[in-house]
Amino acid sequence: MKKVLLQLDADEHPSVFDAVTALDAEVDVLLRHGSVRAESVQPLIHGLLFTRGPEELHHSAVFIGGSSVTAGEAILEAVKAAFFGPFCVSVLFDANGCNTTAAAATAKIAAAAGGLEGKHAVVLGGTGPVGCRAAALLAKEGAQVLLASRTFSRAEATAQSLRERFGAAVRPVTATSPEETRRILEGAEVVLAAGAAGVTLLPESVWTSLPELKVLADCNAVPPAGIEGIKPGWNGREREGKILFGALGIGELKMRVHKACLKRLFEAGDRIWDAEEVFVEAREHMTT
Amino acid sequence: MKKVLLQLDADEHPSVFDAVTALDAEVDVLLRHGSVRAESVQPLIHGLLFTRGPEELHHSAVFIGGSSVTAGEAILEAVKAAFFGPFCVSVLFDANGCNTTAAAATAKIAAAAGGLEGKHAVVLGGTGPVGCRAAALLAKEGAQVLLASRTFSRAEATAQSLRERFGAAVRPVTATSPEETRRILEGAEVVLAAGAAGVTLLPESVWTSLPELKVLADCNAVPPAGIEGIKPGWNGREREGKILFGALGIGELKMRVHKACLKRLFEAGDRIWDAEEVFVEAREHMTT
Amino acid sequence: MKKVLLQLDADEHPSVFDAVTALDAEVDVLLRHGSVRAESVQPLIHGLLFTRGPEELHHSAVFIGGSSVTAGEAILEAVKAAFFGPFCVSVLFDANGCNTTAAAATAKIAAAAGGLEGKHAVVLGGTGPVGCRAAALLAKEGAQVLLASRTFSRAEATAQSLRERFGAAVRPVTATSPEETRRILEGAEVVLAAGAAGVTLLPESVWTSLPELKVLADCNAVPPAGIEGIKPGWNGREREGKILFGALGIGELKMRVHKACLKRLFEAGDRIWDAEEVFVEAREHMTT
Repeated sequence: MKKVLLQLDADEHPSVFDAVTALDAEVDVLLRHGSVRAESVQPLIHGLLFTRGPEELHHSAVFIGGSSVTAGEAILEAVKAAFFGPFCVSVLFDANGCNTTAAAATAKIAAAAGGLEGKHAVVLGGTGPVGCRAAALLAKEGAQVLLASRTFSRAEATAQSLRERFGAAVRPVTATSPEETRRILEGAEVVLAAGAAGVTLLPESVWTSLPELKVLADCNAVPPAGIEGIKPGWNGREREGKILFGALGIGELKMRVHKACLKRLFEAGDRIWDAEEVFVEAREHMTT
Repeated sequence: MKKVLLQLDADEHPSVFDAVTALDAEVDVLLRHGSVRAESVQPLIHGLLFTRGPEELHHSAVFIGGSSVTAGEAILEAVKAAFFGPFCVSVLFDANGCNTTAAAATAKIAAAAGGLEGKHAVVLGGTGPVGCRAAALLAKEGAQVLLASRTFSRAEATAQSLRERFGAAVRPVTATSPEETRRILEGAEVVLAAGAAGVTLLPESVWTSLPELKVLADCNAVPPAGIEGIKPGWNGREREGKILFGALGIGELKMRVHKACLKRLFEAGDRIWDAEEVFVEAREHMTT
Repeated sequence: MKKVLLQLDADEHPSVFDAVTALDAEVDVLLRHGSVRAESVQPLIHGLLFTRGPEELHHSAVFIGGSSVTAGEAILEAVKAAFFGPFCVSVLFDANGCNTTAAAATAKIAAAAGGLEGKHAVVLGGTGPVGCRAAALLAKEGAQVLLASRTFSRAEATAQSLRERFGAAVRPVTATSPEETRRILEGAEVVLAAGAAGVTLLPESVWTSLPELKVLADCNAVPPAGIEGIKPGWNGREREGKILFGALGIGELKMRVHKACLKRLFEAGDRIWDAEEVFVEAREHMTT
């Protein structure tokens, strides 16, 4: 029986990235839907639930993607609401790569830092899709997390939503200048840059002058780097006594985790793979 | 050569139910199109007709689905109009499951009633996609059919359209209360409930008090049942001297018929599978 | 690893013709996108580029189709702009079949005429997608080409665009009546009719009275023929001392060339298949 993945995407064009990754993770057939709204979800999910018997239903699964995490979360809620009784399938939520990228970055950082319990961590560009979920995962692993944004109100709103969604306490801060960024980073052992492409969030002169900073990770693959001086391909490179990760270094793990989660969707028919579950998978892939 | 099924659907999102069923019926590749209008059909059909030679063309076929039977019928007419000379492919029409569900229900009822010739039958919710086609099939099998609706004008319009489309004579009646429903059912041996979800059309106190009623079938899978007291899973259950079918009982045959018709699409390249042809298939599946 | 073809089409419904042809050319999976605009291209292409490693990337490719050559060209430019450094895939451009049909027609004509160097050629309906590209290919093979249209300004604009795009010199002329068409054709050895369906561009009484005309080709498959008296199935038929090609005769080579180009997309990951490259393929297929 063919492994069928229903790809639900709020964007007009459903993601090609997510589609090719699914095919490479041995999905047999993709049913791709773009411009998906919460209100269009129920008949799509019921179509999946009512076509295969209980023993075969785990050969059908759902992937939720798209560039907007908020729109994806609304779809996820509608998918869960369409399930009833034993009628459900497994779901991977990864709008904008938020979960797989955040989980991979956090797992790399945790391993390089020798664990996160009690560590001080800063997430620059912390209000974006990857940044906010990485902040939550770092906090849940025991780190003291500052979530930095250029706008305090956005940082505060994100911190509030992480408290509600993840039960994670992160402290919102602003970082509008190199000086302010340096102040925020004083005492931090870990920094992750997850801002928008095209913006350098952390100058090299700042991070090289912070002796306690041990692990730096940058999610930006397109020049200029979010952390000046880090090359995309670095994957644990040591320099100036620090361990450095670029976007492709993180991306290598992200791709493995993404595909592993896709494969596990079809192992059982009743699991939701969101940030926490994806992170468990990422941590396992670090040790293998 | 791959078996290619062109899925034409008037809804924004082409049906996932129809897609998965086609894949499970050994279709190799689905070309799925939503928001299809009659005027967009010709180039799509010509694309199918002009790509494979005459000996290979039966590996291409068309499925017409969607929630609206009227919109589907307009697509079907446009598909037929796009054929010319020997350039045609086989087509299965099953908007809203109208044909496969109606055919499966009628075949179950016919077998349980020991044939339909001269039997009195009532279809409650007879103006919907399944109800109207089941009414036509029951009539063509020789039953005296009352087609009931809450609104007489809708029942009358449906009866008129069945006369034109199927050459089938059914009598329109109103059923707006339990008392009216009881009156309509007096003398009937067969009743099918095919109304919208969420409405109980026939109370248990009514049907248990009608001694001549022998076969009852309910197409509603979601509680409350259309015929009070029937469980979705019942598949010929005997109770109070009557034979009872629920939606999943009918649905089991519907799925087999749906898949069988999909497979037969690719046997020959020039057949239209509408209500009558699907019913022939359903009756064959009852005896095997 | 599955051969994935990203089908980009500016029409609302991506072409079924192009999809089935790709499947029959051994593409494993199609990712089909309709209503594509230049501005929606980058994330789609990046999704293709960022999912597979450099050694595997040639298993991913792009097909650009749709009924409008202009819209397709805008998509092609956007696709090229989304490539960077070693990150690219192969692309076949064939909006409205412009390249494969023009290449097949030109290759057939060249072979029948014993080469095109110095020959006089006329393209009737020369401003359409097939006509303009055939005119360019004929000119690049050395023919003296008249590009005829009912409207001089359109012929002139097309000639200008061919000069810019192909470096090909063709002379714009008008052909609004049989008399004018006869005048244009005087001295011509070759004529190709590539106008819209439903219009006879060249009466039989005209072409039979032109002794120097040796090769006639008509791209119109639907009656009436563009060149009166030519049957669609003729594939080098000799009559009145002339060699005649109809649309299906050309179409047979067009399909072989179309599929061959699709297969070659996956041989290397960095080639653009536009008119010139498709013509090379067509010429090779003439000799085998």
